[in-house]
Amino acid sequence: MTKYSESLDRAFHALADETRRAIVARLVRGPATVSRLAEPLDMSLPAVMQHLHVLESAGLVTSEKTGRVRTCQIEPRTLRAAEEWLAGQRTSWEQRLDRLDDLLTQRPPADQEGTTS
Amino acid sequence: MTKYSESLDRAFHALADETRRAIVARLVRGPATVSRLAEPLDMSLPAVMQHLHVLESAGLVTSEKTGRVRTCQIEPRTLRAAEEWLAGQRTSWEQRLDRLDDLLTQRPPADQEGTTS
Repeated sequence: MTKYSESLDRAFHALADETRRAIVARLVRGPATVSRLAEPLDMSLPAVMQHLHVLESAGLVTSEKTGRVRTCQIEPRTLRAAEEWLAGQRTSWEQRLDRLDDLLTQRPPADQEGTTS
Repeated sequence: MTKYSESLDRAFHALADETRRAIVARLVRGPATVSRLAEPLDMSLPAVMQHLHVLESAGLVTSEKTGRVRTCQIEPRTLRAAEEWLAGQRTSWEQRLDRLDDLLTQRPPADQEGTTS
């Protein structure tokens, strides 16, 4: 498995959880301390730390400790890589629809062919 | 948890696997039978079926059986929902950068302030 694929595995796995998506959605608005991130979440601080660990392992979040305060921030490159993979699939899908559309506009419908023969 | 959030959980979980992403990347180019999907994959047919089950449960793929042949196709709406969630995060991040940029261009840098006082 390539590093790119491993990175996508970890990113999508990290995003497959409502709490972790809520943390990402908070951090795209700016850095926050762990206790600030925990405030709106209905769970213990160790549980929040565990979610942050998954996000950090996935490269979606980085954190830095100053004294006793750990501040987290988003790592937008990993989010972008996941978005680009999905956009690539959409492009392939749209190109297929375009090709089908071309085929349909080039040929008369089967019914019409039947009536003219 | 809302249905939307559950749906994103399942979609991102399904995409957190290289084989399942390969199946998605194949199906965006058009429908395929299970045996055709299994051809390039280095695994047993039951293993492929299991991956397809995860993709179907996530609403990323649908399948239909005609006689003994099961044909799969992509469900683009679920892919789009995952992409839109990520695009929403990127937009928030970019808006934050724009606000920071506005702040920096409105105020003289701290050093300059120091020299003029």
